[in-house]
Amino acid sequence: MTRYGAQFGPDVTFLGVDRCDLSDPASFAEADVVVIGAPFDGGTSHRPGTRFGPQAIRTTDYLGHDGSRPSLALRTDGLRDLRVLDAGDVEMPPGHIETSLTRLRQAVSTVAAAGAIPVVLGGDHSVAFADAGGVADVLGHGRVSMIHFDAHADTGDIEFGSLWGHGQPMRRLIESGALRGDRFLQIGLRGYWPPPETLAWMAAQGLRSYEMTEIGHRGLAACLTEASAIATDECDGVFLSVDIDVCDPGHAPGTGTPEPGGLTARELLDAVRRLCLELPVVGIDVVEVSPPYDHADITAALANRVVLEALSAIARRRTGVPFDPSLPLLADRDTP
Amino acid sequence: MTRYGAQFGPDVTFLGVDRCDLSDPASFAEADVVVIGAPFDGGTSHRPGTRFGPQAIRTTDYLGHDGSRPSLALRTDGLRDLRVLDAGDVEMPPGHIETSLTRLRQAVSTVAAAGAIPVVLGGDHSVAFADAGGVADVLGHGRVSMIHFDAHADTGDIEFGSLWGHGQPMRRLIESGALRGDRFLQIGLRGYWPPPETLAWMAAQGLRSYEMTEIGHRGLAACLTEASAIATDECDGVFLSVDIDVCDPGHAPGTGTPEPGGLTARELLDAVRRLCLELPVVGIDVVEVSPPYDHADITAALANRVVLEALSAIARRRTGVPFDPSLPLLADRDTP
Amino acid sequence: MTRYGAQFGPDVTFLGVDRCDLSDPASFAEADVVVIGAPFDGGTSHRPGTRFGPQAIRTTDYLGHDGSRPSLALRTDGLRDLRVLDAGDVEMPPGHIETSLTRLRQAVSTVAAAGAIPVVLGGDHSVAFADAGGVADVLGHGRVSMIHFDAHADTGDIEFGSLWGHGQPMRRLIESGALRGDRFLQIGLRGYWPPPETLAWMAAQGLRSYEMTEIGHRGLAACLTEASAIATDECDGVFLSVDIDVCDPGHAPGTGTPEPGGLTARELLDAVRRLCLELPVVGIDVVEVSPPYDHADITAALANRVVLEALSAIARRRTGVPFDPSLPLLADRDTP
Amino acid sequence: MTRYGAQFGPDVTFLGVDRCDLSDPASFAEADVVVIGAPFDGGTSHRPGTRFGPQAIRTTDYLGHDGSRPSLALRTDGLRDLRVLDAGDVEMPPGHIETSLTRLRQAVSTVAAAGAIPVVLGGDHSVAFADAGGVADVLGHGRVSMIHFDAHADTGDIEFGSLWGHGQPMRRLIESGALRGDRFLQIGLRGYWPPPETLAWMAAQGLRSYEMTEIGHRGLAACLTEASAIATDECDGVFLSVDIDVCDPGHAPGTGTPEPGGLTARELLDAVRRLCLELPVVGIDVVEVSPPYDHADITAALANRVVLEALSAIARRRTGVPFDPSLPLLADRDTP
Amino acid sequence: MTRYGAQFGPDVTFLGVDRCDLSDPASFAEADVVVIGAPFDGGTSHRPGTRFGPQAIRTTDYLGHDGSRPSLALRTDGLRDLRVLDAGDVEMPPGHIETSLTRLRQAVSTVAAAGAIPVVLGGDHSVAFADAGGVADVLGHGRVSMIHFDAHADTGDIEFGSLWGHGQPMRRLIESGALRGDRFLQIGLRGYWPPPETLAWMAAQGLRSYEMTEIGHRGLAACLTEASAIATDECDGVFLSVDIDVCDPGHAPGTGTPEPGGLTARELLDAVRRLCLELPVVGIDVVEVSPPYDHADITAALANRVVLEALSAIARRRTGVPFDPSLPLLADRDTP
Amino acid sequence: MTRYGAQFGPDVTFLGVDRCDLSDPASFAEADVVVIGAPFDGGTSHRPGTRFGPQAIRTTDYLGHDGSRPSLALRTDGLRDLRVLDAGDVEMPPGHIETSLTRLRQAVSTVAAAGAIPVVLGGDHSVAFADAGGVADVLGHGRVSMIHFDAHADTGDIEFGSLWGHGQPMRRLIESGALRGDRFLQIGLRGYWPPPETLAWMAAQGLRSYEMTEIGHRGLAACLTEASAIATDECDGVFLSVDIDVCDPGHAPGTGTPEPGGLTARELLDAVRRLCLELPVVGIDVVEVSPPYDHADITAALANRVVLEALSAIARRRTGVPFDPSLPLLADRDTP
Repeated sequence: MTRYGAQFGPDVTFLGVDRCDLSDPASFAEADVVVIGAPFDGGTSHRPGTRFGPQAIRTTDYLGHDGSRPSLALRTDGLRDLRVLDAGDVEMPPGHIETSLTRLRQAVSTVAAAGAIPVVLGGDHSVAFADAGGVADVLGHGRVSMIHFDAHADTGDIEFGSLWGHGQPMRRLIESGALRGDRFLQIGLRGYWPPPETLAWMAAQGLRSYEMTEIGHRGLAACLTEASAIATDECDGVFLSVDIDVCDPGHAPGTGTPEPGGLTARELLDAVRRLCLELPVVGIDVVEVSPPYDHADITAALANRVVLEALSAIARRRTGVPFDPSLPLLADRDTP
Repeated sequence: MTRYGAQFGPDVTFLGVDRCDLSDPASFAEADVVVIGAPFDGGTSHRPGTRFGPQAIRTTDYLGHDGSRPSLALRTDGLRDLRVLDAGDVEMPPGHIETSLTRLRQAVSTVAAAGAIPVVLGGDHSVAFADAGGVADVLGHGRVSMIHFDAHADTGDIEFGSLWGHGQPMRRLIESGALRGDRFLQIGLRGYWPPPETLAWMAAQGLRSYEMTEIGHRGLAACLTEASAIATDECDGVFLSVDIDVCDPGHAPGTGTPEPGGLTARELLDAVRRLCLELPVVGIDVVEVSPPYDHADITAALANRVVLEALSAIARRRTGVPFDPSLPLLADRDTP
Repeated sequence: MTRYGAQFGPDVTFLGVDRCDLSDPASFAEADVVVIGAPFDGGTSHRPGTRFGPQAIRTTDYLGHDGSRPSLALRTDGLRDLRVLDAGDVEMPPGHIETSLTRLRQAVSTVAAAGAIPVVLGGDHSVAFADAGGVADVLGHGRVSMIHFDAHADTGDIEFGSLWGHGQPMRRLIESGALRGDRFLQIGLRGYWPPPETLAWMAAQGLRSYEMTEIGHRGLAACLTEASAIATDECDGVFLSVDIDVCDPGHAPGTGTPEPGGLTARELLDAVRRLCLELPVVGIDVVEVSPPYDHADITAALANRVVLEALSAIARRRTGVPFDPSLPLLADRDTP
Repeated sequence: MTRYGAQFGPDVTFLGVDRCDLSDPASFAEADVVVIGAPFDGGTSHRPGTRFGPQAIRTTDYLGHDGSRPSLALRTDGLRDLRVLDAGDVEMPPGHIETSLTRLRQAVSTVAAAGAIPVVLGGDHSVAFADAGGVADVLGHGRVSMIHFDAHADTGDIEFGSLWGHGQPMRRLIESGALRGDRFLQIGLRGYWPPPETLAWMAAQGLRSYEMTEIGHRGLAACLTEASAIATDECDGVFLSVDIDVCDPGHAPGTGTPEPGGLTARELLDAVRRLCLELPVVGIDVVEVSPPYDHADITAALANRVVLEALSAIARRRTGVPFDPSLPLLADRDTP
Repeated sequence: MTRYGAQFGPDVTFLGVDRCDLSDPASFAEADVVVIGAPFDGGTSHRPGTRFGPQAIRTTDYLGHDGSRPSLALRTDGLRDLRVLDAGDVEMPPGHIETSLTRLRQAVSTVAAAGAIPVVLGGDHSVAFADAGGVADVLGHGRVSMIHFDAHADTGDIEFGSLWGHGQPMRRLIESGALRGDRFLQIGLRGYWPPPETLAWMAAQGLRSYEMTEIGHRGLAACLTEASAIATDECDGVFLSVDIDVCDPGHAPGTGTPEPGGLTARELLDAVRRLCLELPVVGIDVVEVSPPYDHADITAALANRVVLEALSAIARRRTGVPFDPSLPLLADRDTP
Repeated sequence: MTRYGAQFGPDVTFLGVDRCDLSDPASFAEADVVVIGAPFDGGTSHRPGTRFGPQAIRTTDYLGHDGSRPSLALRTDGLRDLRVLDAGDVEMPPGHIETSLTRLRQAVSTVAAAGAIPVVLGGDHSVAFADAGGVADVLGHGRVSMIHFDAHADTGDIEFGSLWGHGQPMRRLIESGALRGDRFLQIGLRGYWPPPETLAWMAAQGLRSYEMTEIGHRGLAACLTEASAIATDECDGVFLSVDIDVCDPGHAPGTGTPEPGGLTARELLDAVRRLCLELPVVGIDVVEVSPPYDHADITAALANRVVLEALSAIARRRTGVPFDPSLPLLADRDTP
């Protein structure tokens, strides 16, 4: 059995964690987390480039690529306190979206079936259909809720004559029954899409979508509290899907469909940390990082930190020691 | 009669709205809004490039250029609920600032005289003299107040030996009597210009200028409330002039004279929405977008959204249905 | 019938020529040349971005977009002496390569059947299968030869598990019988691809491929003379396929798979001019321009000039007046 | 005696202030502030480029380089109300870090001994050892406290086999006794460095480090108040060390080790102003500006404004007139 | 009397040569060469930015700014063997082209009248009217020939309604009688401008314009030989006007109207060297360097080297020792 | 024993060749070629960034990283026909140039002593002292000649007070006796450095330096023939040192000290191929690639191809089958 490695560029792992091979179950039998690259931009409606996202998210860090990242805030090492492996990329030919998504869904299911949390590095957001769907295939359709950070609802029906694309995965997930519409939480929507008929469909499905105006007036913390309650009601696990364009283009220029007026990087990192500390996260994807449009790698660095923040928090959650964000850095942070 | 079209690049309209021809009154007789390009950077004191601003603001959007933009937040389509037309660019040779401003003022007045709201896409801020002046020529000198978002007061007297330039239009507007100094509201000033003697002139004219320190301490919302009250006292309409450099360079790098420490993109969009929902806006310009200094088009995208936010809000205001920003996105937003 | 327009960005035509609508035969009945946009990058094996190629090639020019370009060298106006129309883009969803190529091939055939020369603006080179194939469908399989400027042979068999992609169109064209292998001329190959077994297949098909070493030692002019003789032997027309990466990355950085050591821009323009002056060109494509990797639009500008050089030369060829390249610019260039 | 001038590029001074020559005491005898360039990036562990920081910080401003900058907010001119001189760069060969730091420390001490405030423009943060150390050499070891804005603690022990580098200066300062660990205040830390053993060393030394999570929950103002109290307890002066990477990469992309989730530019400017208004600042450095990674000079502009904000506030502090940040810009700001 | 200095940025001189003040004749009485900055882009028809050209050309060099540049090839130091001074910039407000050109012409005449060679750093090419005109005002109308490197003829009549602009200076120079049309040599023309009627005007005036096709077929050396003979027939001196866009965009991307297919940097440097070795050069301008469109400063560096190549050759010409380009570098190059 | 790996970024090998560990002789016992990374920019006098050169040269290629590159021109696979291994980077702290060079020299000697050809990927050119010196330490001082492609002679004496730096390695090599001055061939020099006294030193040592003027007049091929004869006279092997700035900045912008007027990429590749086909090459370095100044990776791609061209040619030379550059690509190229 041979690990496929990277579709684009050299075969590297997320910050130097160990490799595994999805065709060799023994190689990831003990894993807590398996990173999967989804180097696909065949689903994007505008700027491409997310095929280079997995490589960029894996490697954009000024520290040594040594498979260790001790979190200052949480005092856990997400890459060492958890057993994190990197399965390399799924081969996803850009012109064959259905083939590509099928392969990815199989890879995600394989990881989930092994009891590990899949962390998918996109790729454009069309991969979320495979990511959340692959987890639901294992944990049960309707048993996984979704918390979805994005500027866009991604609930389009048919675009450019296709059912598949980065504006449609959430609709397909709900229509297929993999996820429940009324356990679908969207954070950060804004702008001028989708049109009213799509909003009507969303309302009918029971989605709860937090547009930036509401977030601005009620506060992000209040919205997250409300969303968390819904997400854990009658569901066994939460899938966290982070489209980097939820952040303002000033913080995340390297993306395909930037929409002004988003979250700051700080807000996103704080939100991801909190959700992973509090909720039973069973799958994650971080998508829509497009390196050709990035500057000084700031978008890729942010996505890398989203992954690390999530893993650090999951590790902390597993310690059972609560986290007090107002403690000084150099105080004792680990004694409950 | 022939529409002039674009001075630089192909003849396109703002996100695909219909064309009109200012030399043909019938072509814009029914318009609510007429977009005018002012591709002029002959007035800038530092980085040029705003001549490409109109083209960039018209076209920077990842959605189809179909003349429709349904606002998620406001549930109006600023391009369809209003009759929006695009008159193309005014021909403004960069080396002839006085000729250029005269032509632009005539174009703006033509639109205002037809009862439509002119939306001028700059161009450097020297065009504001023509923009607000052209509206005042129709609605009456002294009858139009100004709300001016900017890092800079733009009240300089003589620069490089000239009365005309992007640091001086506000002084010329007040000196000429077109606008009242005591109905001149400035939001977002900061930095190290103008010098004390200019500030003294401003104080003498009765301007109310909100520097970022005040905004930081009192809150932007409080400042806007105060400014709105002044702007509508004894005036029939409000001209909204948005210099994109009111935002922090992190949010708007593509501009000529970036001054650190500004508003976020979110704050600007929220402010523009609120003002257009609440006040009788009679003219708008969005200026100082310099594409050669932009990255990944984020500044142009922001300016495009400033226009859309304004038009969506104007459309909402005309419905008479109040807007509650704390409502969920998928709730009924249109029933008063 | 409605013209589709542009898939990405505003609906503009090549330097302002008139529009036509491929679903309305009357709209292009008199055309000599029809420009077709193929905004597709679902076939690229590395850097994407060529979906923005058609828009960039159409509009990258500092002169007015007025549908006129008088050639200094040739003293013809390729856009006016010929009847040149622009059909807009073919809708090509990036994740559906087979659907996309089928649509494009139909569009190209429609143009060729009307007696016009299709000029396809790519898009990645996978579109050549549709471009040359669509012409051959009309003029007869085996009746059209190919002169192919490229760093790469594009004769791969299966890549990423697919028969379709930008490294394979030439193989598919020959295998399908649309074009003859022994009337296939390749100019500018270099580097480290394809592997020996593919070269053996090429040799067996009778291709004549000019690698840069041979071009360097024999001279480009001699190679072109030889290639022209082959191209016109037993064929009725020549298809000219220009992959911009035939040029050195210094001259064409904005492309997906740049290979150092290529032609200069001057050499390419001279070669295109000469071939279009001397040979019966029946179709053209200009591909692999990837704007996100371009700098200061120099690659797009080069591709724009490749199109203009070709059209100017075709127009000159139709005058019947020979061209003497050593004449002074201001001499009488039009009297035989 | 000859002024060395600039190591890289032309010999210019900070926004046009007068020159001085550190080898000629008379040339800076009356100075309040002396700017020193430390064009050194031989200590950086990742992206270099800070050798061009001094030049960029000195010159990045759209206003005339006339040695005058009247602050809107503070109504002082930091460059005129104080006597500010620029000593040029210290010659710091990048491959000789110990030699370089020694030279810089001598230069800083020379300035401090003359009673002026040294303002060092980095350069990577390794220069802080020389900057704060040089001041402490004059004012007394243990008598100067440190307020340190940074994403990183910079308290590493040995990196790449060396005691010297941009991740270690704070440890060296404390170990050497120049500064007290328990008067060392760090603002803005975040991310995944240093490891626990280094944090333990920091705790043992009594550092007070404000990680972004604490800042987010308690508020920056509260943290600064607390830090200020510590900084002025048993110390005669405060050294202010500003690593530009304390800001979010969206606001400061042009730096070597960007860490997502930082302060906004506005927050940094407000904090620097407040500290310089309230505390007895005896030395400043602004470091880690790396122009090759900057975009549209926004990072350099921010660093330039950090310097100006500090000087404006120091000048205001010397007037003895308190500053009320909630006053309108055009109100009388100078009467206590 | 006060030297004006730089209009944009700090007051620096060309690679550190001494300053002079055009309002103080004594300051340049002994000069051989006086550099003048013409920071003007109010005449450009497309991309602006050349206002930053003088600063970029003066400072773009990796060597120390020490006022010395020994030429390897020529074994002269153009900055020391000649007395070279830098007069700073002429103040040229971008929106006032006529005022600006008048001021510049006066400056150039002042230098020429003092017996020095003016070297004008543009600025867009509209400045050539002032540059060559100012020299002719002193040396006599009709007594100065022009050798003009450019992609464009710059002989347009009226553009955007104005007689003045970067596409028209050569026409104005000839129409005004300052320069003779039949002593006007143009090297490097190409592309699709001007239209036939302008070419007819040029032919009628007797210009000799070398289009790239002719240069390609006859060789640049032969064309230069022919041009040199014409230039020195009945004229006392030669003005050398170098528009950097004569080079291919691959070598000079940082310019306003890049036209593919130009000279290499090497060809331009060789040509400038040869002409300055062989001809009585009385004035030079180097124009159309637009830093915002440059990459890694390569265009500015080329322009800097054009100036140095010219000055080195002028210095060599004054030694009277012939130059043999085929001699080894380390051979004795200075003995005739 | 543990392989050090990469100093910056993930541990990858040159296009996927196998790893070796210099502290484990068995790991490279059979090697023909060992790649060594020298990620050092502590010796550069201007733009840094070459520390990222090794990573960029190893990975910049659009083809799969599979340890195979069949050369079209030469019909050898330089990575498979030779046994090529990659030893990773030598740890070279930027602030410690002497320590760094000593470590590198030891690594190079280790490889040479094992009978393999070291291929060093720089780093700035200061590393050449270690590279060629390390080979000479094994093969004998005075027994290795140097062919040195560069814009600069790199024969400076003391710069910034140091004997070590990227402008001085060639002098140190000759002064130390490691290499003979009269077997030192320099190709591509140009510009304005070094000064006459250094040229005099070079002449006295017997260097043969081909300045671009000579190359332009005599032809590169003739110069190479002459240089080859000298290089193989009384020497056992040739060290090939390629500073990427020998190419024109249009072809290689990503470098520290770009000098306009250099070779084309094609010329460099042809020259490297020829020399490696004809001469007994015993060591190679490729230096001065600075990714932060590169665009679209074109400089890194060129450097990658320089390495591949050299290895392909060395492999071809070992077959003993002569190479005829004028043969068609698809002809039989392998039968003598």
